[in-house]
Parts: sequence; structure tokens; C-alpha cells
Amino acid sequence: MYDQIKTSVLSLVDFSEEEWEIFQGCLVVKKIAKKDFYIEKGDICKDVSFINKGAFRAYYVVDGKEITSYFSFENDYVTDYESFLLKKSSLQYIQAIEDTEVLVLPYDQMQKLYDTGSKAERYGRLVAESLFVMVYQQRNEFVLYNPEERYVHLLSQRPDLFQRVPQVYIASLLGITPETLSRIRKRMAVDKR
Amino acid sequence: MYDQIKTSVLSLVDFSEEEWEIFQGCLVVKKIAKKDFYIEKGDICKDVSFINKGAFRAYYVVDGKEITSYFSFENDYVTDYESFLLKKSSLQYIQAIEDTEVLVLPYDQMQKLYDTGSKAERYGRLVAESLFVMVYQQRNEFVLYNPEERYVHLLSQRPDLFQRVPQVYIASLLGITPETLSRIRKRMAVDKR
Repeated sequence: MYDQIKTSVLSLVDFSEEEWEIFQGCLVVKKIAKKDFYIEKGDICKDVSFINKGAFRAYYVVDGKEITSYFSFENDYVTDYESFLLKKSSLQYIQAIEDTEVLVLPYDQMQKLYDTGSKAERYGRLVAESLFVMVYQQRNEFVLYNPEERYVHLLSQRPDLFQRVPQVYIASLLGITPETLSRIRKRMAVDKR
Repeated sequence: MYDQIKTSVLSLVDFSEEEWEIFQGCLVVKKIAKKDFYIEKGDICKDVSFINKGAFRAYYVVDGKEITSYFSFENDYVTDYESFLLKKSSLQYIQAIEDTEVLVLPYDQMQKLYDTGSKAERYGRLVAESLFVMVYQQRNEFVLYNPEERYVHLLSQRPDLFQRVPQVYIASLLGITPETLSRIRKRMAVDKR
């Protein structure tokens, strides 16, 4: 139950066994079934969760159209971190796209944890830094590259995505229609011959 | 010299006078003249700096065109945080657009500072969190809103920008041409009558 998160946390900070027990004591196990929501637009996100099993998709709805912002799988975190940090309404939906099991770290527990000392603070800093890098790189993809370049990057960096989530979600992550994605894939298959 | 950063840091963490002295000891004063660069594309960003005076513009060059990513003024931080964290080449330029004075916090000093305890770690966490929120909100602006909506948001949230930086930079921050920005401003002036 706690093996995966323990490995992940101990790769960031060297908690003693006692410190780890305190951390583990803050976690709440929760199962979210496929199609159920982790949060919905308008909710305030009250926790950060570690994914033991399954997958989530985060998306916005703009003019009736869904725009995927990210996917999270086993050993990732799932949260609306802006909503969590600022206690403001979320702008997005986060939905389980498979049956999932998560370990929930509630906001108040997390603040108490930070008060226990520098290792917990370091853990929080390193997680915040990695979430910064994730969203920064995502923004850069949109600013610097065209859809075909974004597709090539995604294919090289996250080949697993193409096996695991429907094509229509991948298109919306790239900011294009499924038809455009099909055209790009066909063109590239021809170029490769 | 250190009054502004002291106010800023102490609003985040309650350093004792002694802890503050250690923090202050890590800072290096530097003047960067208007038009000189804080970093250029390809550089590895080796520090985070607090701006005492002046302004910077961060921008990408894509197909020969400049795309502004942000402005930083007095009491803000300036850095390429992704380059700093991952020690990878920066994708952007950060240029002084006025004569500036900054307090530089070098990477190695910052890591040593983190090792001094939980307050320094908390400072780092809170700065990382605020940089996350900044880039997250910037990404959302592009995903969720059209240029006219982005202009209205910017005008309401950062009216100072319109006084301080050239129109052409503001257009490139909004992801539009100066001509489109002029059209939006004229149309909105007419609507207001």
C-alpha cells in the first residue's frame, strides 16, 4: 500500500523511520472509480494525492470543447496545485480514466507536516519545484513549437501515453483536432518510408 | 541596499536577526545596465536574483520573432528557474529594459542556505510555489482566453505595465501583433462611450 510512495519520498529526502511513520500517518487511502472526478470546476482542491494505481486526466472546458491539460499515472501526483495553494476555485476537471487508488495528503495535514522540520519542508520544496518545471515546459511547448513538433516531442518523451489513452485526448493535449493528429501521423509514416 | 529584500523575505519566514545575517551574507550586489542581458539563450542560469531597482523583460526568439514571456520589476525575482533547477541551457533571453540593481543569490549559496534549516527550506518552498502559480496562470491565460480577454485581464491586474513598457512588448506578451493590440484598444474605447 505504501511502498510506492515511500520509494518516491525517500528519493527526495532521507526521512528516518520515525519521520516516515509521521508522514505515512497523514495519508488517507481512497479509491476513485473510472469516470468519477477527483475535482470538478468550481471546487476548491483540498489535497495533493499520490497515485498508487490507475490514471487521471485533467481538462478545461472552453466554449463547450474539452482541452486536456495533463495526464497522471502511477507514482505521479494528482492535484490542482493552484487551487490547493491559493484556496481558490479550480478552473478544471480532473477525472479518473481508469479505476484508481490514491493516497490523499490533505491540506491541513500537509501544513502540520511542514511544521515538523526541514526534511518535510524540503520535500514540499522539491515537489513544488518539479510541478513548476512540468507546467513551465508545457507552456514552452505551446509558445515555441507548432503542433507537428509538439507531437514529435510527446512521442519521444511519453511513448506510453499513445498506448494508454484514447487518441482524442492526445489530440486535445496537443491543442489540435483528432483529424489534424491523424493527418500528422499519416504524413510522418509516409516520410519515414 | 537590503531593506527591500529583507521586507520581502520576512513576509514569508520569521528569520531571527542571526538567521537573516546568514541569508544576507549570501547575496551579491550587481548592476545590470539597460539593454544588457541577465542571461542569453543557451546559458545555464546560475542564480536567482531579487530586483532592487529597474526592470527586466524575458523573451523567446521563434522564427526571428520575439515573444515576451514576462516582465520583472522592483521587489520581484528574476531568473530562468527551469534552467537554474535542472542546470540546463536556457531557451530564453532576459534583458534589462531599464538600468537595474539586483541582489544575486547564487545556486551553490542557495543549496548551502537550504542546509541551514527549516526556515530557509520554507523560504525556498514558498518562492517555488509562487513561481508555479505565476507560470500556471500564464499558461491558463493562453489556453482559456482569446487575445481581447487576455488584454482585459492584463489591464485590470497590471495597469502599471501599460505605463512602463513599450506597447510592442505588451502585444508580444499577449501573443498578438502591435496592430491587433491597437485595434482591440480602439474597439474597447468606442464600446466604453
